Amino acid sequence: MNKHAYNVAIVGATGAVGQQMLKTLEEREFPIASLKLLSSKRSAGKQIEFKGTTYTVEEAVPESFADVNVALFSAGGSVSKALIPEAVKRGAVCVDNTSAFRMDENVPLVVPEVNEADLHNHTGVIANPNCSTIQMVVALEPIRQELGLKKVVVSTYQAVSGAGLDAVEEMEHQTKAILNGEPVKAEVLPVGGDKKHYQIAFNAVPQIDLFQENGYTFEEMKMINETKKIMHMPELEVAATCVRLPIETGHSESVYFETNKGGTSVTDIQQMLADAPGVTLQDNPSEQLYPMVTTSVGKNDVFVGRVRRDLDRDNGYHAWIVSDNLLKGAAWNSVQIAESLVKLNLLGK
Amino acid sequence: MNKHAYNVAIVGATGAVGQQMLKTLEEREFPIASLKLLSSKRSAGKQIEFKGTTYTVEEAVPESFADVNVALFSAGGSVSKALIPEAVKRGAVCVDNTSAFRMDENVPLVVPEVNEADLHNHTGVIANPNCSTIQMVVALEPIRQELGLKKVVVSTYQAVSGAGLDAVEEMEHQTKAILNGEPVKAEVLPVGGDKKHYQIAFNAVPQIDLFQENGYTFEEMKMINETKKIMHMPELEVAATCVRLPIETGHSESVYFETNKGGTSVTDIQQMLADAPGVTLQDNPSEQLYPMVTTSVGKNDVFVGRVRRDLDRDNGYHAWIVSDNLLKGAAWNSVQIAESLVKLNLLGK
Repeated sequence: MNKHAYNVAIVGATGAVGQQMLKTLEEREFPIASLKLLSSKRSAGKQIEFKGTTYTVEEAVPESFADVNVALFSAGGSVSKALIPEAVKRGAVCVDNTSAFRMDENVPLVVPEVNEADLHNHTGVIANPNCSTIQMVVALEPIRQELGLKKVVVSTYQAVSGAGLDAVEEMEHQTKAILNGEPVKAEVLPVGGDKKHYQIAFNAVPQIDLFQENGYTFEEMKMINETKKIMHMPELEVAATCVRLPIETGHSESVYFETNKGGTSVTDIQQMLADAPGVTLQDNPSEQLYPMVTTSVGKNDVFVGRVRRDLDRDNGYHAWIVSDNLLKGAAWNSVQIAESLVKLNLLGK
Repeated sequence: MNKHAYNVAIVGATGAVGQQMLKTLEEREFPIASLKLLSSKRSAGKQIEFKGTTYTVEEAVPESFADVNVALFSAGGSVSKALIPEAVKRGAVCVDNTSAFRMDENVPLVVPEVNEADLHNHTGVIANPNCSTIQMVVALEPIRQELGLKKVVVSTYQAVSGAGLDAVEEMEHQTKAILNGEPVKAEVLPVGGDKKHYQIAFNAVPQIDLFQENGYTFEEMKMINETKKIMHMPELEVAATCVRLPIETGHSESVYFETNKGGTSVTDIQQMLADAPGVTLQDNPSEQLYPMVTTSVGKNDVFVGRVRRDLDRDNGYHAWIVSDNLLKGAAWNSVQIAESLVKLNLLGK
């Protein structure tokens, strides 16, 4: 990292991810010259502490980005679509945590452990992938590098905080209501903007985001398309089933994958994972050691365990991948992108 | 069904499954001449109501089975191993809900919608498959019949009641403790008899039953081996990842499967499911219609939705399968076997 310090803006500072971005910037001692906390009009005026200083949240408007070097966006797709072009025009490099620009061919979609070099191609906007995509590609990349990758089938176990603080509150209210024998209200999940809402407490809901024409949800198509883009593998076979569960924070994934080269031992795969950046291997069945939400939340790494051979195909494997969806899935990956931009001298280019 | 009535015994009458067996026998108006409720010494003496009569639970001993025509066992593998030979010796036909005899080549492993005819080969014992296996084979069988089946990869979302009433209570206690900010105790899950115990509330635990030498859990191997046996397909490729979740009752499954014949439309697959015995198709994305635990519990059917084509392999499909693990997964399938035995005149043979 060079010795400069940067003017940083956080858009969506009062949200679940925005809060984690601030915590992560502080922990990582990101070189901040000035900090702007931005939000919707509704949240403007709130006060937030950062490194002992109190900041007042301001409404995000185009002029907010004058003199900003790097802006981290996590305030929803429509905010990103409206304000990122304005911020870029004013010289800010934007790291966007929404899906607004992810599939734009001029926008790098970056997980630093996988494709940091793509940052060199940025033209002002870098997209942060979907939470469930990030943790999967971090775990699969070291294996892809050694053995190649042919097919991925993932079933997710996703936490409600991925749908925002309203969803977390809804789950808590519903859980209390059920334990007290009271009626349950559902107004947020599975998708705020969809027609119907279902109980999440003590339930499993196989819908995250809206359904697409092909029967997959948008969340599932994000995992499919983003994985191919990040890995630069349009030919990679990817399928996903995304499921929301009564868990506050922390996504888990059951992943079946086929490599190009078969016959590699589980021990060798475990070694690739143990050596990989951003991965913690937790895999010892005889000690009941495997990743869980309860042991992963609050940590930046992606945790991998339950690695085993498919019993039928000698290029088939199974693994269980867990990470904090608000950290590596969002805030930490965004801050990591900002750190890479600094390291590669790509801010203000 | 013929006009006879039978002397019925329930072993494990006070347990989670035993209770559902009684409820199901009553609902189905199974032709009962006499009913014996049996249990461990510890639970003997308890009183249970059935069709308006109060029964006193007796300790299960070999002599309990004199004159019994059909005995439904759900009191753990060691009880089944000890008492089923004694019951068979005394002329009772035993339907066993434990894993004790499932892989015995002389014991039919039966899901009536799939392999009812195997009952003809019984020599006194019929095994009821594992809960997570049953709902999967009911959903896949109609597709197998039309298109053949090559490979199945399943990730499960399993409820705590599959681990018994103690596990349900543990989840409730932990949930209350977390909501009240109190410390969490874990003494039952993931496996009563294993070394370590983990929090299940607001967590996902990728271990059900003990780990085997090959890195799979026994629950996963049950799904693999039992599916092949029930479908009479030793060559079928099956892999499973079994996960326990904070859900009281109702298992969900995300299933990827490859058929022999490719290119069939989703509409045709949906029609096969809609026409199949024991299956309710719930599959309309535009109306957010898909199976969930909250809408499936308390019902005997297997609910299937989210049917879609794999985007890469033209013989690949995905589906979401939900059922009540205490009903079709246990009690209802056992009673259904008893009904089939009556129908086929195989009791007292």
